[in-house]
Amino acid sequence: MSRFFSSKYSSLEPYTPGEQPRDMKYIKLNTNESPFPPSSAVIEAVREEGGRLQLYSDPECTPLVAKCAELYGVKKTQVLMTNGSDEILNFAFMAFCDKDNPIVFPDITYGFYPVFAELNGIPYEQIPLRDDFTIDVNDYIGINKNIVIANPNAPTGIALSLDEIEKIVKSNPNNVVIIDEAYVDFGAQSAVSLVDKYDNLIVTQTFSKSRSLAGARLGFGIACEALINDMNTIKYSTNPYNVNRMTMMAGYMALCDNDYYMNNCKTIIENRAYTKSALEALGFEVLLSSANFLFAKSDKITGEELYLKLKQNGILIRHFTKERIKDFNRITIGTLEQMKIFIQATEKIIREL
Amino acid sequence: MSRFFSSKYSSLEPYTPGEQPRDMKYIKLNTNESPFPPSSAVIEAVREEGGRLQLYSDPECTPLVAKCAELYGVKKTQVLMTNGSDEILNFAFMAFCDKDNPIVFPDITYGFYPVFAELNGIPYEQIPLRDDFTIDVNDYIGINKNIVIANPNAPTGIALSLDEIEKIVKSNPNNVVIIDEAYVDFGAQSAVSLVDKYDNLIVTQTFSKSRSLAGARLGFGIACEALINDMNTIKYSTNPYNVNRMTMMAGYMALCDNDYYMNNCKTIIENRAYTKSALEALGFEVLLSSANFLFAKSDKITGEELYLKLKQNGILIRHFTKERIKDFNRITIGTLEQMKIFIQATEKIIREL
Repeated sequence: MSRFFSSKYSSLEPYTPGEQPRDMKYIKLNTNESPFPPSSAVIEAVREEGGRLQLYSDPECTPLVAKCAELYGVKKTQVLMTNGSDEILNFAFMAFCDKDNPIVFPDITYGFYPVFAELNGIPYEQIPLRDDFTIDVNDYIGINKNIVIANPNAPTGIALSLDEIEKIVKSNPNNVVIIDEAYVDFGAQSAVSLVDKYDNLIVTQTFSKSRSLAGARLGFGIACEALINDMNTIKYSTNPYNVNRMTMMAGYMALCDNDYYMNNCKTIIENRAYTKSALEALGFEVLLSSANFLFAKSDKITGEELYLKLKQNGILIRHFTKERIKDFNRITIGTLEQMKIFIQATEKIIREL
Repeated sequence: MSRFFSSKYSSLEPYTPGEQPRDMKYIKLNTNESPFPPSSAVIEAVREEGGRLQLYSDPECTPLVAKCAELYGVKKTQVLMTNGSDEILNFAFMAFCDKDNPIVFPDITYGFYPVFAELNGIPYEQIPLRDDFTIDVNDYIGINKNIVIANPNAPTGIALSLDEIEKIVKSNPNNVVIIDEAYVDFGAQSAVSLVDKYDNLIVTQTFSKSRSLAGARLGFGIACEALINDMNTIKYSTNPYNVNRMTMMAGYMALCDNDYYMNNCKTIIENRAYTKSALEALGFEVLLSSANFLFAKSDKITGEELYLKLKQNGILIRHFTKERIKDFNRITIGTLEQMKIFIQATEKIIREL
């Protein structure tokens, strides 16, 4: 820390991204990327944009916002595109939370929420998940505080129903409820259908998982126009050209090619079912996932040991050191071939213990 | 404004980007873009990256940072890449300024500085330029406050010498001095050579102007390792994957192709000289510019009228409404052909008054 660093950040602990080792080629099941490349139309759109990079991008992302609004059945004024969904989440924390307006989220969830809160000087409360890692909806009913819930939750993969989400949103009319749907396309119900009914609901999504664009950085928020306007005030006071030309066109074409991506999601869901069964056959406890990953533990091997041994075998999964979940690992669902290799390696590791 | 918007932003006035009208094709001399496309190696690098977008980008921008460090003669730990230079500027405001550590900048300069200050609750002071729009270095000597200076300044184009910059940095050892070198490649002296000598200096640059990548969004900061570490703490608490894969490779190849871009800068400087002479021949007062734009006014026509009439003629320049500079316009330097069209149109407008 330099002697110039603002004291308000003295205890700030940044987010730690999943490891990206470059020492060898791994089967990457650690950062919830899609195993499928972008559609050919996306690749072509990116190629075309390369020759126009001397010109600024469109701060309003006009065609992308229009296509997104059309696909999700909302108005263009209800959509805001950002440099990954981390950015829309940060905008929402900034715009609607402050020292007098705290935020609440589960104790086990996306690790960036406490970082956004710390960064922005926002008091926060972490409500423990039940012992089975499900969210008790009653913990969020009428609590009169801002709320962020990942649905499906990460790294558990467990989803709430749309009815449960609506109860939370409806019962906190004087606070903003952010539903982070990064993984929604893999089997959960989206709350986008509720944004016209509730002026306190923000739904965020990302192109990183179901739309194979993690490396392009594109996320978005859908909410009532007034909430989107406020987040635009933050955007235009931070980085008006936040989405570059190539990413904007990639996102646009990804929405045009919706069927390709939704078919990939179906395949992931099938591969997830295969992997869950195979892990259970090996004695693992596997949580019920609606995401493109599984959260699993074994009584035979610690989470850390399995992670390290798989890494030696060229397979990366994600291990967390947090006490309550340190026995688990998060395994991204890849192609069927990748999952078979993962299962074989895991079986061998357990057999040789 | 929604009823949920944090009261701390109630008076926040966002930055207004230059207009991007889509009603017809304009000669765009309004947002300081390069008239030259990226080099073919950049375009090729972008094309190749399209097929890998399902994978996250490298949060450390490893090859790009290494190449930048090599080219600028600094250590890799002294470089931080961001989503445009607005992001590195915001990181610097966040990291080193707060309610107890105000920031100072000229009254006429990049319009985003007061917005960053307002956004982050930072008190700020605007020191008037001299009547001739130059910076009086004495205004910044030993003032014991954080300072940001655009060098060359915008929208005037006037540069300080390296000696003058060093005096400011040296005389404020307990405060951070940010030198925003967005336009430095068009004729000013960079302060990068001073970062090893002063632990309170941050130099920011962008790929948007001299490197034809406005639409890719890439900026960077160079400073001592401790300052870079602090800004990395902000980055990893905001958006670790802030630079996407395509932009990272575009930036890398743009640095490899340095000669192409520096030759383009030479051409811009020649076209600037032509345009300045031609405007002066038409009776304009034109400030001495070291940037890829000119700041000029005429006694025969108001800034607003000239802007509007040129727009009717399919030529966009930038007009500011701020009282002290409302008689001026900022004219981006394009190709010689574009500048000749601009001069002809301006001549005709003035003749027909």
